[in-house]
Amino acid sequence: MQEGSSSDFATVDHDRAARCGHGEVIYAAGKLPHEVVAIAQELLERGSSPCVLATRCDDAQVAAMREAFDGKQPIEVGERCGAVIVGTAESKSTTPIPIVTAGTSDLKVAEEVALTCKALGFEPYPINDVGVAGLHRIMGRLDEVRAGNCVVVVAGMEGALPSVVGGLVDVPVIAVPTSVGYGASFGGLSALLGMLNSCASGVTVVNIDNGFGAAYAACQIERA
Amino acid sequence: MQEGSSSDFATVDHDRAARCGHGEVIYAAGKLPHEVVAIAQELLERGSSPCVLATRCDDAQVAAMREAFDGKQPIEVGERCGAVIVGTAESKSTTPIPIVTAGTSDLKVAEEVALTCKALGFEPYPINDVGVAGLHRIMGRLDEVRAGNCVVVVAGMEGALPSVVGGLVDVPVIAVPTSVGYGASFGGLSALLGMLNSCASGVTVVNIDNGFGAAYAACQIERA
Amino acid sequence: MQEGSSSDFATVDHDRAARCGHGEVIYAAGKLPHEVVAIAQELLERGSSPCVLATRCDDAQVAAMREAFDGKQPIEVGERCGAVIVGTAESKSTTPIPIVTAGTSDLKVAEEVALTCKALGFEPYPINDVGVAGLHRIMGRLDEVRAGNCVVVVAGMEGALPSVVGGLVDVPVIAVPTSVGYGASFGGLSALLGMLNSCASGVTVVNIDNGFGAAYAACQIERA
Amino acid sequence: MQEGSSSDFATVDHDRAARCGHGEVIYAAGKLPHEVVAIAQELLERGSSPCVLATRCDDAQVAAMREAFDGKQPIEVGERCGAVIVGTAESKSTTPIPIVTAGTSDLKVAEEVALTCKALGFEPYPINDVGVAGLHRIMGRLDEVRAGNCVVVVAGMEGALPSVVGGLVDVPVIAVPTSVGYGASFGGLSALLGMLNSCASGVTVVNIDNGFGAAYAACQIERA
Amino acid sequence: MQEGSSSDFATVDHDRAARCGHGEVIYAAGKLPHEVVAIAQELLERGSSPCVLATRCDDAQVAAMREAFDGKQPIEVGERCGAVIVGTAESKSTTPIPIVTAGTSDLKVAEEVALTCKALGFEPYPINDVGVAGLHRIMGRLDEVRAGNCVVVVAGMEGALPSVVGGLVDVPVIAVPTSVGYGASFGGLSALLGMLNSCASGVTVVNIDNGFGAAYAACQIERA
Amino acid sequence: MQEGSSSDFATVDHDRAARCGHGEVIYAAGKLPHEVVAIAQELLERGSSPCVLATRCDDAQVAAMREAFDGKQPIEVGERCGAVIVGTAESKSTTPIPIVTAGTSDLKVAEEVALTCKALGFEPYPINDVGVAGLHRIMGRLDEVRAGNCVVVVAGMEGALPSVVGGLVDVPVIAVPTSVGYGASFGGLSALLGMLNSCASGVTVVNIDNGFGAAYAACQIERA
Amino acid sequence: MQEGSSSDFATVDHDRAARCGHGEVIYAAGKLPHEVVAIAQELLERGSSPCVLATRCDDAQVAAMREAFDGKQPIEVGERCGAVIVGTAESKSTTPIPIVTAGTSDLKVAEEVALTCKALGFEPYPINDVGVAGLHRIMGRLDEVRAGNCVVVVAGMEGALPSVVGGLVDVPVIAVPTSVGYGASFGGLSALLGMLNSCASGVTVVNIDNGFGAAYAACQIERA
Amino acid sequence: MQEGSSSDFATVDHDRAARCGHGEVIYAAGKLPHEVVAIAQELLERGSSPCVLATRCDDAQVAAMREAFDGKQPIEVGERCGAVIVGTAESKSTTPIPIVTAGTSDLKVAEEVALTCKALGFEPYPINDVGVAGLHRIMGRLDEVRAGNCVVVVAGMEGALPSVVGGLVDVPVIAVPTSVGYGASFGGLSALLGMLNSCASGVTVVNIDNGFGAAYAACQIERA
Ligand SMILES: Nc1ncnc2c1ncn2[C@@H]1O[C@H](COP(=O)(O)O)[C@@H](O)[C@H]1O
Ligand SMILES: Nc1ncnc2c1ncn2[C@@H]1O[C@H](COP(=O)(O)O)[C@@H](O)[C@H]1O
Ligand SMILES: Nc1ncnc2c1ncn2[C@@H]1O[C@H](COP(=O)(O)O)[C@@H](O)[C@H]1O
Ligand SMILES: Nc1ncnc2c1ncn2[C@@H]1O[C@H](COP(=O)(O)O)[C@@H](O)[C@H]1O
Ligand SMILES: [Mg+2]
Ligand SMILES: [Mg+2]
Ligand SMILES: [Mg+2]
Ligand SMILES: [Mg+2]
Ligand SMILES: [Mg+2]
Ligand SMILES: [Mg+2]
Ligand SMILES: [Mg+2]
Ligand SMILES: [Mg+2]
Repeated sequence: MQEGSSSDFATVDHDRAARCGHGEVIYAAGKLPHEVVAIAQELLERGSSPCVLATRCDDAQVAAMREAFDGKQPIEVGERCGAVIVGTAESKSTTPIPIVTAGTSDLKVAEEVALTCKALGFEPYPINDVGVAGLHRIMGRLDEVRAGNCVVVVAGMEGALPSVVGGLVDVPVIAVPTSVGYGASFGGLSALLGMLNSCASGVTVVNIDNGFGAAYAACQIERA
Repeated sequence: MQEGSSSDFATVDHDRAARCGHGEVIYAAGKLPHEVVAIAQELLERGSSPCVLATRCDDAQVAAMREAFDGKQPIEVGERCGAVIVGTAESKSTTPIPIVTAGTSDLKVAEEVALTCKALGFEPYPINDVGVAGLHRIMGRLDEVRAGNCVVVVAGMEGALPSVVGGLVDVPVIAVPTSVGYGASFGGLSALLGMLNSCASGVTVVNIDNGFGAAYAACQIERA
Repeated sequence: MQEGSSSDFATVDHDRAARCGHGEVIYAAGKLPHEVVAIAQELLERGSSPCVLATRCDDAQVAAMREAFDGKQPIEVGERCGAVIVGTAESKSTTPIPIVTAGTSDLKVAEEVALTCKALGFEPYPINDVGVAGLHRIMGRLDEVRAGNCVVVVAGMEGALPSVVGGLVDVPVIAVPTSVGYGASFGGLSALLGMLNSCASGVTVVNIDNGFGAAYAACQIERA
Repeated sequence: MQEGSSSDFATVDHDRAARCGHGEVIYAAGKLPHEVVAIAQELLERGSSPCVLATRCDDAQVAAMREAFDGKQPIEVGERCGAVIVGTAESKSTTPIPIVTAGTSDLKVAEEVALTCKALGFEPYPINDVGVAGLHRIMGRLDEVRAGNCVVVVAGMEGALPSVVGGLVDVPVIAVPTSVGYGASFGGLSALLGMLNSCASGVTVVNIDNGFGAAYAACQIERA
Repeated sequence: MQEGSSSDFATVDHDRAARCGHGEVIYAAGKLPHEVVAIAQELLERGSSPCVLATRCDDAQVAAMREAFDGKQPIEVGERCGAVIVGTAESKSTTPIPIVTAGTSDLKVAEEVALTCKALGFEPYPINDVGVAGLHRIMGRLDEVRAGNCVVVVAGMEGALPSVVGGLVDVPVIAVPTSVGYGASFGGLSALLGMLNSCASGVTVVNIDNGFGAAYAACQIERA
Repeated sequence: MQEGSSSDFATVDHDRAARCGHGEVIYAAGKLPHEVVAIAQELLERGSSPCVLATRCDDAQVAAMREAFDGKQPIEVGERCGAVIVGTAESKSTTPIPIVTAGTSDLKVAEEVALTCKALGFEPYPINDVGVAGLHRIMGRLDEVRAGNCVVVVAGMEGALPSVVGGLVDVPVIAVPTSVGYGASFGGLSALLGMLNSCASGVTVVNIDNGFGAAYAACQIERA
Repeated sequence: MQEGSSSDFATVDHDRAARCGHGEVIYAAGKLPHEVVAIAQELLERGSSPCVLATRCDDAQVAAMREAFDGKQPIEVGERCGAVIVGTAESKSTTPIPIVTAGTSDLKVAEEVALTCKALGFEPYPINDVGVAGLHRIMGRLDEVRAGNCVVVVAGMEGALPSVVGGLVDVPVIAVPTSVGYGASFGGLSALLGMLNSCASGVTVVNIDNGFGAAYAACQIERA
Repeated sequence: MQEGSSSDFATVDHDRAARCGHGEVIYAAGKLPHEVVAIAQELLERGSSPCVLATRCDDAQVAAMREAFDGKQPIEVGERCGAVIVGTAESKSTTPIPIVTAGTSDLKVAEEVALTCKALGFEPYPINDVGVAGLHRIMGRLDEVRAGNCVVVVAGMEGALPSVVGGLVDVPVIAVPTSVGYGASFGGLSALLGMLNSCASGVTVVNIDNGFGAAYAACQIERA
């Protein structure tokens, strides 16, 4: 094993903050609780980042994180999405990053967007339940939607909201398809395809339910 | 062969007008030109319908129809979609049937909707190129969209327009996905899935590019 | 937050009854029990609709609804499909809306169709277990099938029943594919494709298992 | 090269008639015209079969076959499907094998069924254009449909006809999905899935457009 | 309700034995235990069949059937597949119906084939675990495989066994793809496609895991 | 027709530059040559944009554009991708926008990226044929890749290049899957899925072959 | 039953070691615990192999194996993947077989690779968590990667690592897609397609999560 | 541009022979004829390889290659598959590499395998048309199949041949699915899935029709 600081099961990428602007984030799914804690500790000790973000933690992983860090470090947990922030992010910008959701069922993914923004040092600004079946809801809040340097739009079902938003703003729209829907939504495929085929210009897309990825890209744009 | 009037290759359904309210329509794809003409003649002679509609005719089929009927019967040809009307439809209603298209590339399918309405005795009313990337276009014509007892919405790409229209009217919306788009539109699948997953209520869907089917259902609603 | 009556997690669309003819319906999936209750209360208090419908409630949501409304409002629960009606619908029509099912396994979806019709003020009329493998069953009940201004047909497996019904009636057929079947039915995809490709005219389709959507469209047609 | 009679590009299976009851059939697609002729000659000379069948021949292959065998052997060509029979089949049975088609667009595939039956020594009996949108057509010919020991049903679009036939006969139904249809028929996938999910018992299925395979199985049943 | 003997939730097809040669079979999935029992009782009382078959029963349904019929009727339960036979089938033939499985994981589906054969009055003959990775296993038992008038072949993974069997026998091969496999087998899709594309002639296919359907077709062939 | 300047077949969105920062772009596919010219003229005359871009022009459309504008306006044609620029863009930024291609077969799409950047007033900077099978190629040009505020990465086949680039830069990566590949690339689906599942953070994706969309988003980021 | 040593439910392939170089491996999924033990005992007794490998054992199967063999034979259990080795393999080579994983979530599949290598008499050499988002990790360990006669690469998500490794070594790369990922990874399909479309030469692919298959092929190459 | 020898449109990887054992191969699809020639010349001049291979050349590209190299270098063209070899390969081994095809329609892909082997300095050994529908054909040539250190198996339709071969040899099997087949073969998907799910151990798979990739891997194994 050549890279000293690596544990047996992981090769932590301590150089990432230098290369990419932010240290490695822990994707908890499929890891044992103690592995999540160990990687978090290694990241904090080596000082790669002032704070650490772990996404998709289940109850056992959240408990292990609380046990390891409560009382030693500030810790924030997203109850819907299982994201955990340990430590305090250094603020990079106070410009709001609007996070627009189509319906209340998309809140789980939107919470992952918001917590990721916070962990990276940016300001999430939620605008909830303003889907296209009642257009006046988004039309009535256009000033808020246009207040940032990009917009994150979270939607399931037919995934039409990013096209509507894309036609109303002059900043990049990052579209997050969610697995909300049933039948022929095929676990988010319907929303994903809708967003990829958006007739509005300037819409780019991330993976289904990938709130983390959307937030990361939004923060990079904000900093650009 | 038991059913007297049938030719060798076809068993024409002369009873359909009695059962379904309109005689059999000829789906020309895969038929020889003379077969299309022969079926049209049998339908006209047996008096199933005052006029006959053949959809999806290619150039050779259109030519054969013109040669057979020009000078004997009124004949109208949809140049984009290959629909042919022989004879004159009996008017059933003068209420407009709004046909809303998202973009100019959807005109081919919209023409099939319009000609089918005419062949069945109803009034098509086109509202073109008012897709969701520029919402003011559809918002500025809501009176026209709301003037009928149903609305046909024709859209490709992400197929978002029916959701928007469905949220603005109190009549049924018949959504027609088109194969317009590229890449991950997969020949209209993207628009089809989007429409099936519409977050607006009252939207029903027909097959990709099936302008005929949408018009037929719209006319049945108009008559209901 | 600009729209006064909205809670934090939801932007209830109180204008919908005016625009679309019926107030917002609560799609319970993915909402917390207290959220379902809160939205129902807001809808009833603001008077958007004389009665409220929540679909796809699980046991906890049904219990929360019962606790909130029992003794205060009439409440009806569909035990198979989890639809809940609170309040009393104002009758809009007494013409029956025939709901035809192919097999007994499709009853869950058919119940959602029936309860939605009732909540919207219309009369559901079930005709059960008359699939195409025994044609005499549907042929023997044609008068009932033809008694309305449209027909809802619910079927899984190959989804052939709407084509047969479509060839026998002169009103619109709304086809609901169900996820009933195994193996290559792929969760209802087989029935969905079958219905979209129906050789009968006048058949339109809603999403897999979407009894609500089919009923909503049927009621709009009935009122048209 | 160990098997004496084999040419360089082919290892003809001269033992097949002994094992399977009929000699190898030439699937012409992807073969050079002279290769098709050479294999046909080898099969005839080695006496594997009294006659040879080549399916899916294009114009050049048909021409090569005519040039090689015209005047020397009886030769029959299916103009729609490109099947070629050289030589005369020995009759194995005179019981009709009913071949039921849903529409006239399915005739191409039905012709391959018929010619294969003839090449194997059996009697094809076509019943055309009796799809489910007009049920009286198939109901009026039930005696003919029931006259054999199995039924071949050829249908595209939603592929519903085999389920209806399966519910009316007490012999095996071999269903052939065709690529007839548009949009969401996806090249015959819709009909294929419909047939695999048939609610009628006793329906088995072959590949899309595989008239040859259906006929071969039907002849084996007839002989069983 | 026009058909007297039908219960509210079901329209039992008492005429099926006359039309199709065997009475209706109960597909238990999605039915309440008492509904399965009620339909079984109605079928036995009306004398449609000397014995009744219910497939895909879960534990509760099996228990309800045992409680209703134990001590009154002979009852046989397939422990792997959940098929239940009540009553005694009248023997229709003593010719064996070979049921060939590729691996031991396919035994669940093969049991459904065997019990269906028995319920219909035919003799199942299992030949287990003789897949293509060890060809000598099937080659060593060819006499048994060739002893019937058809062969049922049950296989998962790549579904190659029917092609090999099809090249060795002169009777129809009914192929049953199973959902056995992992990764890119996609729930049996791989085996299904393999069987539909079989290079051997005379292979027809039923739905994934549909042991019932394969047996039914085999018995019809046996009786043909 | 309410919107004065609109032709019959199109409702040109003259307000788009105000809302979105750039006027409507003409997607030529499916339009008649004279329609492309007419829309271009309307856009130039109404002054929505100082220059007009039409993408996906075929030979006839390019010829019509040349005939209409040669000698009157500057005109530039992308010979590989069929994009046409008429007029001169106003420069918005001189920061290079790196456009990285995996192989030479991706050049067609990369050209659409480059011409769109130019039409919008930005500076494309191509870095060609540096795919992951020879990593030293991209490693040797990292300074150039890092010179902008975002990177566009164009790749077909497995679509791995965006992940590698995403791990090396601290700006947003816009990934464009191309339809380059054969067999199981399924028209770009393989690259699309690869990019959506990128293990690198900050990668967002546009539709297959959608060079226009990627460039548009990149320019919005550059301007943000 | 002709093959003496076979139990009723299984036809163990005792000849496989002679033909293929290694005896049959037990794929435990879908087998009863006592069946797994019985096959293992038969294989050990008949001496087909010095040791026996069972893959995909669940807890009950592992327990049954321990109960049957503990104290009698050496037994090793892979806790993550459920592989069980009974007996001691005869060493065939001491050249390391490098097993490279992209992330820590791929460890389960990598463990199946390693245990299979050991059971076949070869030396697994794990190199973990060196995915493409941090290229320096794999670049820093190239000597180890190049130390064998082939490389096994295990990766989920976009499956890019085999392409990178393939461009850096001159031995065959066996790529194992894993089902690690979410949303549009579709259970490993994304990684599978990525690997099949690898732009690097010399990459071959096994089924999703099929660590056994990859190891088996690697050992055959090592022995070649 | 940093890498001296690279042309504008290509960054030729001259280091590849050192890293991977063989220089870059030209994938001609999507390149202009003069680009194919230019890359070939650069590769020959820089001496990366003693000979150059270009695959998938169309007629114009073949003509350009002939014009550029005829009379100057030995040149060999695969007429079926469009592979072109310029120069003379240095022999690396005389052990035959068996290339087994299922049917004559697979010859196009097999030719690409053979020419690639030759270009890399190895000996292709074709064994044609020995598919599983006639097992005696492959059984009769086992000595030839077993003569090398690996086997390449090329098959379309159900792709069963690799499983059969895999159960008969003790060397790695490289399976190449071909797009030969119709209907539900979906362009080779059926064969691809079949091969990935092979029940035989030691089978690895390359992309559909990817004869080049299979040959490359086979040669690496041969040299291992
Ligand atoms: N490749 C593309 N080129 C140009 N416009 C595109 C492209 N893809 C999507 N679009 C959008 O599609 C609209 C054209 O729609 P249409 O009304 O059919 O002309 C444009 O205004 C763009 O916003
Ligand atoms: N595996 C199966 N077991 C029993 N019946 C089946 C099966 N597959 C299809 N069926 C058919 O499905 C019908 C049951 O439909 P249902 O009305 O829902 O009970 C039966 O009459 C059979 O014709
Ligand atoms: N992951 C795996 N573990 C063990 N055997 C496997 C695996 N994948 C495929 N196989 C093959 O599947 C056969 C087991 O088939 P069965 O008769 O159902 O036990 C074994 O002999 C192997 O050749
Ligand atoms: N439609 C078809 N026509 C002829 N042969 C077919 C067809 N479908 C499958 N086959 C089988 O494919 C084999 C031809 O394989 P090949 O060696 O490529 O000629 C024949 O012997 C048949 O068993
Ligand atoms: Mg809402
Ligand atoms: Mg437009
Ligand atoms: Mg029933
Ligand atoms: Mg017809
Ligand atoms: Mg076995
Ligand atoms: Mg290159
Ligand atoms: Mg890691
Ligand atoms: Mg052959």
